[in-house]
Amino acid sequence: MSVVVTDTPRPDPAALQRLGAFGVATIHEAQGRCGLMQSYMRPIYPRARLVGSAITVSVPPADNWMIHVAVEQCREGDVLVVAPTSPSDAGYFGELLATSLRSKGVVGLIIEAGVRDVGPLTEMRFPVWSRYVWAQGTVKETLGDVNVPLVIAGQLVHPGDAIVADDDGVVVVPRQAVASIADKSAARETKEAETRKRLAAGELGVDIYGMREKLAKAGLAYKKWPG
Amino acid sequence: MSVVVTDTPRPDPAALQRLGAFGVATIHEAQGRCGLMQSYMRPIYPRARLVGSAITVSVPPADNWMIHVAVEQCREGDVLVVAPTSPSDAGYFGELLATSLRSKGVVGLIIEAGVRDVGPLTEMRFPVWSRYVWAQGTVKETLGDVNVPLVIAGQLVHPGDAIVADDDGVVVVPRQAVASIADKSAARETKEAETRKRLAAGELGVDIYGMREKLAKAGLAYKKWPG
Amino acid sequence: MSVVVTDTPRPDPAALQRLGAFGVATIHEAQGRCGLMQSYMRPIYPRARLVGSAITVSVPPADNWMIHVAVEQCREGDVLVVAPTSPSDAGYFGELLATSLRSKGVVGLIIEAGVRDVGPLTEMRFPVWSRYVWAQGTVKETLGDVNVPLVIAGQLVHPGDAIVADDDGVVVVPRQAVASIADKSAARETKEAETRKRLAAGELGVDIYGMREKLAKAGLAYKKWPG
Amino acid sequence: MSVVVTDTPRPDPAALQRLGAFGVATIHEAQGRCGLMQSYMRPIYPRARLVGSAITVSVPPADNWMIHVAVEQCREGDVLVVAPTSPSDAGYFGELLATSLRSKGVVGLIIEAGVRDVGPLTEMRFPVWSRYVWAQGTVKETLGDVNVPLVIAGQLVHPGDAIVADDDGVVVVPRQAVASIADKSAARETKEAETRKRLAAGELGVDIYGMREKLAKAGLAYKKWPG
Amino acid sequence: MSVVVTDTPRPDPAALQRLGAFGVATIHEAQGRCGLMQSYMRPIYPRARLVGSAITVSVPPADNWMIHVAVEQCREGDVLVVAPTSPSDAGYFGELLATSLRSKGVVGLIIEAGVRDVGPLTEMRFPVWSRYVWAQGTVKETLGDVNVPLVIAGQLVHPGDAIVADDDGVVVVPRQAVASIADKSAARETKEAETRKRLAAGELGVDIYGMREKLAKAGLAYKKWPG
Amino acid sequence: MSVVVTDTPRPDPAALQRLGAFGVATIHEAQGRCGLMQSYMRPIYPRARLVGSAITVSVPPADNWMIHVAVEQCREGDVLVVAPTSPSDAGYFGELLATSLRSKGVVGLIIEAGVRDVGPLTEMRFPVWSRYVWAQGTVKETLGDVNVPLVIAGQLVHPGDAIVADDDGVVVVPRQAVASIADKSAARETKEAETRKRLAAGELGVDIYGMREKLAKAGLAYKKWPG
Repeated sequence: MSVVVTDTPRPDPAALQRLGAFGVATIHEAQGRCGLMQSYMRPIYPRARLVGSAITVSVPPADNWMIHVAVEQCREGDVLVVAPTSPSDAGYFGELLATSLRSKGVVGLIIEAGVRDVGPLTEMRFPVWSRYVWAQGTVKETLGDVNVPLVIAGQLVHPGDAIVADDDGVVVVPRQAVASIADKSAARETKEAETRKRLAAGELGVDIYGMREKLAKAGLAYKKWPG
Repeated sequence: MSVVVTDTPRPDPAALQRLGAFGVATIHEAQGRCGLMQSYMRPIYPRARLVGSAITVSVPPADNWMIHVAVEQCREGDVLVVAPTSPSDAGYFGELLATSLRSKGVVGLIIEAGVRDVGPLTEMRFPVWSRYVWAQGTVKETLGDVNVPLVIAGQLVHPGDAIVADDDGVVVVPRQAVASIADKSAARETKEAETRKRLAAGELGVDIYGMREKLAKAGLAYKKWPG
Repeated sequence: MSVVVTDTPRPDPAALQRLGAFGVATIHEAQGRCGLMQSYMRPIYPRARLVGSAITVSVPPADNWMIHVAVEQCREGDVLVVAPTSPSDAGYFGELLATSLRSKGVVGLIIEAGVRDVGPLTEMRFPVWSRYVWAQGTVKETLGDVNVPLVIAGQLVHPGDAIVADDDGVVVVPRQAVASIADKSAARETKEAETRKRLAAGELGVDIYGMREKLAKAGLAYKKWPG
Repeated sequence: MSVVVTDTPRPDPAALQRLGAFGVATIHEAQGRCGLMQSYMRPIYPRARLVGSAITVSVPPADNWMIHVAVEQCREGDVLVVAPTSPSDAGYFGELLATSLRSKGVVGLIIEAGVRDVGPLTEMRFPVWSRYVWAQGTVKETLGDVNVPLVIAGQLVHPGDAIVADDDGVVVVPRQAVASIADKSAARETKEAETRKRLAAGELGVDIYGMREKLAKAGLAYKKWPG
Repeated sequence: MSVVVTDTPRPDPAALQRLGAFGVATIHEAQGRCGLMQSYMRPIYPRARLVGSAITVSVPPADNWMIHVAVEQCREGDVLVVAPTSPSDAGYFGELLATSLRSKGVVGLIIEAGVRDVGPLTEMRFPVWSRYVWAQGTVKETLGDVNVPLVIAGQLVHPGDAIVADDDGVVVVPRQAVASIADKSAARETKEAETRKRLAAGELGVDIYGMREKLAKAGLAYKKWPG
Repeated sequence: MSVVVTDTPRPDPAALQRLGAFGVATIHEAQGRCGLMQSYMRPIYPRARLVGSAITVSVPPADNWMIHVAVEQCREGDVLVVAPTSPSDAGYFGELLATSLRSKGVVGLIIEAGVRDVGPLTEMRFPVWSRYVWAQGTVKETLGDVNVPLVIAGQLVHPGDAIVADDDGVVVVPRQAVASIADKSAARETKEAETRKRLAAGELGVDIYGMREKLAKAGLAYKKWPG
């Protein structure tokens, strides 16, 4: 019933690297506003950033046995993506597991549960996005699955999907779409750079985006303060 | 039905500047414990501070069209105060809008919804107090209102009211009261400076504030540990 | 009905100091996963740390009168542990009380309610773990109790129990157990140091902990990616 | 500082009665989607309904003294609208106060805090919309205000405004607008009755509302299941 | 970009009917503890029950346009499954849409957002499981998708999957698995009926399930009350 | 490490029965506002009521093994009081366990976690107060303790303490205090009956309780509506 899928695919490394240059907000827009995990997924320290290829782990509530199993499946550039089958704020993950993952080249952790040893993890600069921070320990009693598709914080993730995370949250990009979403993100950013310059110079968005006519048609009225 | 009110008044600049020297806790006390927004309004980076004159924006859920409209009404020293008509954790506001507002001299944003581009906003030191942080985008489909009185995080704000925000939250001071609340805040702080000195020297609050008799009358008993 | 218990015991200072060298996660494990307060108790600034002997304060909702009373019972190395009898997010505690406590040698505050003056407290490096941050003031109208046993954030605390707090949360250690839990924490840490070295060198946890046979017996299967 | 405003106005009784015939959803739509309190305001028993004229009460956290004061200001057809100045889940209100209010002809209670004696209140069919249900008692120590404008659950209420509440929530209608909103609600309901009949007969909303062209223009495509 | 998929498959009607005879807890167990939506999905009236074939609707926040579009794709025995792309507590659905769906034979609604007209819906006995109840209206401005796979309350749903809901929550069964899960549920229930009889007769679960040896081996000790 | 304490004491049956005649709000007041569990403990059906003697069960997250063990320790008039060592919304308890408990004469369940089979439990009229309702199953892998003191929903409970629960929540009364709190509750109720009669007759609380002078002294002013 419980399975570890081995030799899972990864996205093209060059495309993944290109994707990682963009912010989560940009990527999620470039992707048609899809793939964004719920807003409760927060980084354990400010300005954390991460791009990697997903190794997925489905875990029982308050049981981290399968995370230990998953380490063996990881390699350089992977990110561990962990979802409990029933909500839990227990601290599934700490400094020892981070040390183990780092020795494999894993770039970070996304977990819809709790994490602990936040002090040491911050010192190591091992980035984690979690739902909770809590010292509460877990057991190693019940199996789960590694590298099966799973739903985490409202999004479906397959092994080998790209994960990008920053202060704004966590976004998933399907493996086959990494190159094209990187292109679209770049296009969006180029366009925004131009807009940013004009806005910084004092031009108004309503003019740059040509909104005035549409606003008037929708019935917007301007009225002087009566005072 | 939708309206933008122009040429709204601002508080006296000198009084506003004086008010801005005090912390939110002090001002809210000086004002008789009124005007404090709910505790879920949090700064996007630690030690952010802001004082400004409110430009109010009432927006539909997950639709930031009216923020673009509001920029034109802003000038040096204003703060944008944005409340959705129905709760939303979408990211209404990011780096481009901040760039545009900064070009007008706007000092920051108070929003009872989501904000994104928190990394770039932190680098710009553009302070935001929001209910959520999330990359999720918004549409530009439905009108709202600019510079109407609105309720945000449990407080009524009129255009031109003073807003002060720091790590402890966000407080609203009615435009006409800015000078008098600044005076009362100053008086409170002067008194507290004296108390602080005595407390630091080891005097007890129960003595400084003369509480011992009132405590005894209320029935407080002292009892030695039985161990 | 209301009482202040004086001359409460403290744990052995040397044992307390030894205990304070360990993280909250380690101590809570060494103690058989007991004594950990709920995950909503959060430090007001990152990397705050504290070890101390509990002075307990039971307070009415939004009334901080008894905190003023409690100061007098504190001495070098104590930590104030405050729980409201009914939930409250009001700001019971700020810079003045911190100044007063520091003059007595108190090392910090644990409060299942709100705190304010977070900016000044951070500058003072006066560590606080609280459920809320909010400027909202409190009254001084109703009595409570000092140094009675109380339940805070799901844990029972007696005066003189040891409190350790860091980024991962807050843990309580009964006064009589301080030395033995410090020993067990040390043992645990020694063992972890060895494991950490092996994990950093690339050995796998499933091998170090000898999990492979147990996993197989539990029915774990390995399967190659079908792609 | 604390005040009880007496002889406050009420809306026209006939208009109020007409308004009370409509559901909260209908009234809030007729009013341009304004005036709806937050979704956490819930009735204490299913199918509760209420229409009345607001007597407003601003109360300190966990202190119900002013509710006792407010009773004297009530008369036939009024509804008590109570908001704490700082959030509280204490049980401010129970069977005795309901008995007192009923003797004055008061039709129910709206409270952004806790209520208790829910069993007896249900037996009395005294309807209450509250944020919490909890037995926790309150004190009578600190003053507040009666019949001042207040913000409750995100809405501004003046004394004499109309309040309508049902399973869907609580809506406020400004006193001067009661007749006109009752008219608009009636118009809306008449139109809906016609639509309901057509929908029940199997006609589609996309046809009745003429949406097909707008949908096509917006880019909606129909595609057969590939299976 | 937006699409309505037509002629989606349904599960075998006989199998679906058999599945509907079991409770959500039983089905979720029979399915290996998969497919259960988050605990915040609650019925609008007690003892509601539903079994049906999913028509999925992905909607923008606070915009119910696509629900109107989806009605046309429904037929006898379907259940509407609606998820917003960004969280919303607006009331997407009320009595008129229920009337329209009922005319098509739709058995109920599952929505990870708000619902209104809860009174009339209860009278109609039109069952709804939602995250919120709120009168707040929605707009009809932005497209979404009908009959695409979607994630709702933590579960992936494809059009034609079976949905069963009762007081305990909502469970999804993949279309192809309906018959086999119905069989497994039946087997589970048969076994439980036998156990229930023995438990009612006073036999202990620790004996019926043969737990005593395992408990002893795990280290459970029995100790008499010292009093 | 794990223990089941047998032959725990119960309160005097006559006193327990007397106590059970009063509501939770009354008992909590009679007890000096102590012993009330947090407001999130809610009954699974309206108007549920319970009085009993506590059998306590400390359980791991999402593991209900110890509940099976606890059944054997129960007898006529007991109530099961279950708290997880780490928060969980899993459904620890359902119809089969209720059947088993009922055969022993157990009167109900208090659980700071999830419960399932709410439909069948309601039909059986087996009352449960829980934090969550959810079908999610639990495992039987890890030991806990039966009849040790535990903290549940913010209150300390010892085996043999009296538990009273109704629509307003759950209150704990220490075993030795049952008779005296029943007396105080009776006294309180007698007094309230008199007050209720006077309030129903239209007398005002401010007069009955003699508040007018105290209100005036505190500074309350009456002011006519300026309109």
